[in-house]
Amino acid sequence: TRRGLPEAILADGKTPDETATLAVAAVETSGRALVTRASPAHAEAVADALPECDIDRDARAKTVVAYDSPFERPELDASVAIVTGGTSDAEAAGEAAVVLREMGASVERIEDVGVAHLGRVLDHLDTLREADVLVVAAGREGALPTVVAGLVDTPVIGLPVSTGYGHGGDGEAAILGMLQSCTVLSVVNVDAGFIAGSQAGLVARAVSDARNSE
Amino acid sequence: TRRGLPEAILADGKTPDETATLAVAAVETSGRALVTRASPAHAEAVADALPECDIDRDARAKTVVAYDSPFERPELDASVAIVTGGTSDAEAAGEAAVVLREMGASVERIEDVGVAHLGRVLDHLDTLREADVLVVAAGREGALPTVVAGLVDTPVIGLPVSTGYGHGGDGEAAILGMLQSCTVLSVVNVDAGFIAGSQAGLVARAVSDARNSE
Amino acid sequence: TRRGLPEAILADGKTPDETATLAVAAVETSGRALVTRASPAHAEAVADALPECDIDRDARAKTVVAYDSPFERPELDASVAIVTGGTSDAEAAGEAAVVLREMGASVERIEDVGVAHLGRVLDHLDTLREADVLVVAAGREGALPTVVAGLVDTPVIGLPVSTGYGHGGDGEAAILGMLQSCTVLSVVNVDAGFIAGSQAGLVARAVSDARNSE
Amino acid sequence: TRRGLPEAILADGKTPDETATLAVAAVETSGRALVTRASPAHAEAVADALPECDIDRDARAKTVVAYDSPFERPELDASVAIVTGGTSDAEAAGEAAVVLREMGASVERIEDVGVAHLGRVLDHLDTLREADVLVVAAGREGALPTVVAGLVDTPVIGLPVSTGYGHGGDGEAAILGMLQSCTVLSVVNVDAGFIAGSQAGLVARAVSDARNSE
Amino acid sequence: TRRGLPEAILADGKTPDETATLAVAAVETSGRALVTRASPAHAEAVADALPECDIDRDARAKTVVAYDSPFERPELDASVAIVTGGTSDAEAAGEAAVVLREMGASVERIEDVGVAHLGRVLDHLDTLREADVLVVAAGREGALPTVVAGLVDTPVIGLPVSTGYGHGGDGEAAILGMLQSCTVLSVVNVDAGFIAGSQAGLVARAVSDARNSE
Amino acid sequence: TRRGLPEAILADGKTPDETATLAVAAVETSGRALVTRASPAHAEAVADALPECDIDRDARAKTVVAYDSPFERPELDASVAIVTGGTSDAEAAGEAAVVLREMGASVERIEDVGVAHLGRVLDHLDTLREADVLVVAAGREGALPTVVAGLVDTPVIGLPVSTGYGHGGDGEAAILGMLQSCTVLSVVNVDAGFIAGSQAGLVARAVSDARNSE
Amino acid sequence: TRRGLPEAILADGKTPDETATLAVAAVETSGRALVTRASPAHAEAVADALPECDIDRDARAKTVVAYDSPFERPELDASVAIVTGGTSDAEAAGEAAVVLREMGASVERIEDVGVAHLGRVLDHLDTLREADVLVVAAGREGALPTVVAGLVDTPVIGLPVSTGYGHGGDGEAAILGMLQSCTVLSVVNVDAGFIAGSQAGLVARAVSDARNSE
Amino acid sequence: TRRGLPEAILADGKTPDETATLAVAAVETSGRALVTRASPAHAEAVADALPECDIDRDARAKTVVAYDSPFERPELDASVAIVTGGTSDAEAAGEAAVVLREMGASVERIEDVGVAHLGRVLDHLDTLREADVLVVAAGREGALPTVVAGLVDTPVIGLPVSTGYGHGGDGEAAILGMLQSCTVLSVVNVDAGFIAGSQAGLVARAVSDARNSE
Ligand SMILES: Nc1ncnc2c1ncn2[C@@H]1O[C@H](COP(=O)(O)O)[C@@H](O)[C@H]1O
Ligand SMILES: Nc1ncnc2c1ncn2[C@@H]1O[C@H](COP(=O)(O)O)[C@@H](O)[C@H]1O
Ligand SMILES: Nc1ncnc2c1ncn2[C@@H]1O[C@H](COP(=O)(O)O)[C@@H](O)[C@H]1O
Ligand SMILES: Nc1ncnc2c1ncn2[C@@H]1O[C@H](COP(=O)(O)O)[C@@H](O)[C@H]1O
Ligand SMILES: [Mg+2]
Ligand SMILES: [Mg+2]
Ligand SMILES: [Mg+2]
Ligand SMILES: [Mg+2]
Ligand SMILES: [Mg+2]
Ligand SMILES: [Mg+2]
Ligand SMILES: [Mg+2]
Ligand SMILES: [Mg+2]
Repeated sequence: TRRGLPEAILADGKTPDETATLAVAAVETSGRALVTRASPAHAEAVADALPECDIDRDARAKTVVAYDSPFERPELDASVAIVTGGTSDAEAAGEAAVVLREMGASVERIEDVGVAHLGRVLDHLDTLREADVLVVAAGREGALPTVVAGLVDTPVIGLPVSTGYGHGGDGEAAILGMLQSCTVLSVVNVDAGFIAGSQAGLVARAVSDARNSE
Repeated sequence: TRRGLPEAILADGKTPDETATLAVAAVETSGRALVTRASPAHAEAVADALPECDIDRDARAKTVVAYDSPFERPELDASVAIVTGGTSDAEAAGEAAVVLREMGASVERIEDVGVAHLGRVLDHLDTLREADVLVVAAGREGALPTVVAGLVDTPVIGLPVSTGYGHGGDGEAAILGMLQSCTVLSVVNVDAGFIAGSQAGLVARAVSDARNSE
Repeated sequence: TRRGLPEAILADGKTPDETATLAVAAVETSGRALVTRASPAHAEAVADALPECDIDRDARAKTVVAYDSPFERPELDASVAIVTGGTSDAEAAGEAAVVLREMGASVERIEDVGVAHLGRVLDHLDTLREADVLVVAAGREGALPTVVAGLVDTPVIGLPVSTGYGHGGDGEAAILGMLQSCTVLSVVNVDAGFIAGSQAGLVARAVSDARNSE
Repeated sequence: TRRGLPEAILADGKTPDETATLAVAAVETSGRALVTRASPAHAEAVADALPECDIDRDARAKTVVAYDSPFERPELDASVAIVTGGTSDAEAAGEAAVVLREMGASVERIEDVGVAHLGRVLDHLDTLREADVLVVAAGREGALPTVVAGLVDTPVIGLPVSTGYGHGGDGEAAILGMLQSCTVLSVVNVDAGFIAGSQAGLVARAVSDARNSE
Repeated sequence: TRRGLPEAILADGKTPDETATLAVAAVETSGRALVTRASPAHAEAVADALPECDIDRDARAKTVVAYDSPFERPELDASVAIVTGGTSDAEAAGEAAVVLREMGASVERIEDVGVAHLGRVLDHLDTLREADVLVVAAGREGALPTVVAGLVDTPVIGLPVSTGYGHGGDGEAAILGMLQSCTVLSVVNVDAGFIAGSQAGLVARAVSDARNSE
Repeated sequence: TRRGLPEAILADGKTPDETATLAVAAVETSGRALVTRASPAHAEAVADALPECDIDRDARAKTVVAYDSPFERPELDASVAIVTGGTSDAEAAGEAAVVLREMGASVERIEDVGVAHLGRVLDHLDTLREADVLVVAAGREGALPTVVAGLVDTPVIGLPVSTGYGHGGDGEAAILGMLQSCTVLSVVNVDAGFIAGSQAGLVARAVSDARNSE
Repeated sequence: TRRGLPEAILADGKTPDETATLAVAAVETSGRALVTRASPAHAEAVADALPECDIDRDARAKTVVAYDSPFERPELDASVAIVTGGTSDAEAAGEAAVVLREMGASVERIEDVGVAHLGRVLDHLDTLREADVLVVAAGREGALPTVVAGLVDTPVIGLPVSTGYGHGGDGEAAILGMLQSCTVLSVVNVDAGFIAGSQAGLVARAVSDARNSE
Repeated sequence: TRRGLPEAILADGKTPDETATLAVAAVETSGRALVTRASPAHAEAVADALPECDIDRDARAKTVVAYDSPFERPELDASVAIVTGGTSDAEAAGEAAVVLREMGASVERIEDVGVAHLGRVLDHLDTLREADVLVVAAGREGALPTVVAGLVDTPVIGLPVSTGYGHGGDGEAAILGMLQSCTVLSVVNVDAGFIAGSQAGLVARAVSDARNSE
């Protein structure tokens, strides 16, 4: 598969049937299929179409992974921390976590640390500093990646989340804030947990390869 | 003058002559004229037109205040802290400071505390907590008012500043971020230091009156 | 609780179950939970999860407050007037009213005064001038806070409401108009009644403290 | 000329030479040329190219009108009032006034009445009510046409002006506010004084014709 | 009633009950209630609440008018033509027609004339020229009012309609095109048939009054 | 050269020197260089750097073409008409004309036909119908391509021009109107005369090839 | 029918009944009706209303074509290739294909070639180069038409598709990218498969006519 | 210095004097100052203020670096390739190159490879695949990072550049296209070469550390 990424299917906008057909093809080609933004109906159609597969479903992340029986996940010698500001960030962050797990990275979750409560951020400083790369999700004003990046030496990928209402709602303030950050960040699109996780995975793989090149 | 505010003239978009004429009228009516966004040419025209007045010019804030000789500023028994993230915030914050001084509030300036360096914010915690109301200016991603408001019990007025380039530049990310803040803030328009200072002054006056009502 | 604000849960975007769990935690921590943007299903779930609590539900404001039996609300020696232009402003204004009541302020409601009928505004001049701080809600062109602020000496917080259709609809014209106001206002996001009320409450608390400082 | 409107040339974006050539052609065709948004250089080029013509230049409105010697302006039996909120509205309002004068309407100017000072608006109630149609110019939050339209029985044409800075500046808040007005208004584009005046002139002509039809 | 306009209630966004209550009040005050954007449920609630009234419902315009038995409509000595480009313009144009009828104007409807078929426009030239004022509705690129205004001597009010998809859809291209028109037009907001009709009615009334003033 | 297009250099944003260097390279490679958006300084630098070349400069279109002495332009057996609404469209339309001439098409210019004066459009009906493909330029409300396309059987390419001020100015209304056209058009970006001309040239070449295939 | 295009009815936004009535009229006038964006209910209503007609329904393209029994499609001596990047482009591309078939062009479909997999594009180079004109559909970042146009000598019409989420979603990035393309393209609105196909058909007809002119 | 990044001063928006003062402070603190977006006047002021320093100025990148005599740059055992589509990308890409050099990475430049000329991209495949991380700059439609990322296994950081005119110009289409990319990318703001280079440097440092951890 390209760039070591799992074959992924974005269920949203496809019928359960279309999704299942694409998942079957992905399992045939690569031994695994990762379905994102899957409703219960999508999840069921995939499981039904792949009765021989092991199925891993994460309802909060809205992902389904189907594995051919003999499938063996890669293993990377590198770790990624995923940080979120609140429960509304769970879906996007969960998507990132699943793709990272499939790429073989060690994943650490740090939840419910928000910029309005600096103490909670500071409590996790050690974990934040031990990771090789960070994905930091935030909605509303999206300031968390900026605050975190000021505390660590590792690359931070900002993941804006579509929370917030009114002017600048739906993640618009969050993505603009991350693009304007006064620290160093790179950014993905609003709710693009799969992209944030994959990019973090590519970095983790580069680190892992370097660690194991002799 | 209305609402206890100094008579103010926005010089930007007016010729030096027009500005001076309005300043003379303001001094006649109220004993004082506050000119904002004044270029050196505006400042000179005002001084020339009011040779008998005391003139206070603040080049960084781009303000000029002219006082009739016997003018006596009000004095409020209340204090306002003005916080900025960097040197680019100086003009807007300075405008706020001047109007507050003219309204009679005690003004405390806290400069160059940025969200990417939490330590600097935490160093000023005592000063931040002692003020009756805060004006917090920030450009780029505009996160500073959110971080500060999470640390104090007083009202915070967010003042977005037109720094930043590219997508969300010119203060757009900053104002949207403040409107989406996950804490409690009220906000003024981009670079509206005069409005932020005036609103803080109205709150300070209410507190001062309350303190001195018996 | 932080800044004297009630622990608040934004129900919109959460399931009734998630909302109820957070409400239970808030009652445990602080003796009270304020749920905003609550549908009937959210309200019911909260009541069911807290059978020992006193429940106050305001269907128009879409709020639910649950109190531990021995809970005692703070009391402030300060008053806030909430002004609206029409019935569409009721939900946002109601949210502001509930949070102010919970913070202990005296709340005065002035309804259905619109800029196209100046007489109605002028009729309430005395009430407007007696309050310590005003929250003025308006949709469509959002001019009411500007007109009111020209008539009083106290701080005015503009609360734009998402009414209006076509170009500039959904509160966009209203928020831009308040940010451009030719008087002194501070502003919160569209429909952010909770924020407007909380900010007014922080000012009211500062005034009340000052009144009762000796 | 079409619709009884003077032949008009928008100088902005044209060279003085191009402008003068078009003005000469307009005088030849219709006995008169109206040049709008004319810089001093444009004005001079027009005067030089039409040495036999009477020239009327209004520097504040940035208009130049050139008349063939025997030219006789139409006269309408109808009046238009043009209302402005501040000095920044002078150019757009002046453009409207000039085109109305050329169409033959009686023009009444009411200046410096702003929504933050209701008293000034109410002082002119009689004049406002006597006009057959009103053009009301306003920048920043653009609320003046709404307030005026609530006080009269005649048609009001809103003319947004490109004042204001930051979010919603350059007339954006003003035009959106007029389109969202909670009264009855029709609107022209930002700074489109020529269009506002012309449309008012067409209404005035219809009224004048009706008055003189027997 | 203010400005000779019928008391109008915008049903959209209100419950049938709220709408009916307001309609009852309008009939009590002014002998008539005009409900716009009324769903069948709104229409029914209004009829049920006013069993003694004559009810006029126009399903295509989505309007309901309720009249007190002895109600007598005003009659104006002036005519308005309403022009549309296609069937999608029917609702907005119908709203305009109903309010004009209630104000007492003679209304002429010209339908399905589109800019891509100039012949159809030219066929109605006489009718277009006989009206005292025109309302021209158009969606998509919104060019019809410009083409029509180039053919007549009377005032034209452009009414943009929320048709069209993709970039500039929902009436955005239409309203911008009318504001940028290279002829003289005034404009109302997207789908604001009530405002377009009312403004045309105010002009018609001015003409009618002039005709009958002696 | 690729797709039969002349090697083109966009001078705007490049220094005269950079432009001249690129022009020299283009002449070496392909015997010809087309420079667009050339200021006088750009034009001079190109001429100086290519003293042996024939130089064709069109000041209104802001183009410069340099030809190696033995250069022979292609010749197409197909014609393109370029239609404009006014003098402000001259630069973009001229750019299109130059690239079409260089591609070898016969070019017919039809100028100053505007939608507010249908007669002028109808006068050129025969010429419009004889061309193999049309480029129709229009600024402000951009309705001309729609009107023309309703009158011909050939493909029409809409070329929006950055005229107009205020809301929807700078060609924004024009491009949106063309994208929303109720006839069949394809469109290029605002002021993209080079692209419009090149695309028309590609169609003309296809027609020419077809004509001469036997 | 005008410009050789089939009479087309856009079902979306019309009731099934309205759609059927228009289809009946189109068949009567021109022997054929093309209904686009037809839901199953629209399709059924059309078939029921035209029991004597041959009906061709394409569920993926959401089109219905009804033919009078003796109807004979035109035949063009020209071919169009329609290229898509993924399954989400099927509806818009299918609409283009149906209108092209009805105009009589030979249509070649090339599916699932995406810019992230250049190999797949290069595999179809011969087919791409044999067509007389290309329609290239793409969603998300919309780069496919640019890449394809760099490989062929024929005109390319870019068809942006409303896929993608977050910032620039719903086809916005795609249309802007095509308008900014560094190659020569003309563009239609987002999802405007009917317009893209029709414009390609007009070019194909011009080529066919040229081929058969002797 | 924080995160191993050079102390950087953004000269744009600061006076030469302010810039020089900050550069002196940076040299004092960290032995080095990196000034970005420096005009010739900024560059001169910095050199004059630091007469003892080695000065490295890159006019195309608009950067100045001043080093204390004994300064020793870090050295990383990792490489970054910087890819550009055209000469307009030189400033942003140059900024990235300078910061990477200062962080100690090996930098490879690949210039003038554009999506409309796939051959040029494919020519550099080996170099592209050898780098540890890529920065890919592109203006206009911004498709280059997507095409490149489809060809390599390493992380790609997209750097949008403010080229392009009309709709989606100034880098807007480019940034939206990169955020919507159908491959895996992370993105920085328009023209944010400093951020892109710094983020690539943080990844390179992580890889270098991993290589040298044993
Ligand atoms: N810097 C400023 N920002 C916003 N409003 C201002 C500023 N300076 C003065 N004003 C306000 O603008 C009003 C004067 O506007 P003008 O008539 O344009 O001079 C004053 O009464 C102030 O309320
Ligand atoms: N209606 C509301 N509007 C804006 N903020 C709210 C609202 N209700 C609650 N909040 C804030 O949102 C926080 C809870 O957010 P959440 O974690 O999403 O429930 C509370 O602490 C409040 O500060
Ligand atoms: N899918 C479509 N997209 C854009 N235009 C269409 C479409 N289908 C039909 N049309 C055009 O819309 C016109 C009919 O519009 P209407 O009167 O709204 O049915 C037809 O003449 C076609 O030119
Ligand atoms: N070209 C640039 N683009 C974005 N950020 C920059 C640039 N140059 C410097 N910076 C950042 O801006 C900070 C300095 O900002 P300032 O205080 O405005 O000089 C530095 O610490 C860098 O992180
Ligand atoms: Mg957050
Ligand atoms: Mg800042
Ligand atoms: Mg209102
Ligand atoms: Mg105003
Ligand atoms: Mg239309
Ligand atoms: Mg035009
Ligand atoms: Mg695509
Ligand atoms: Mg590029």
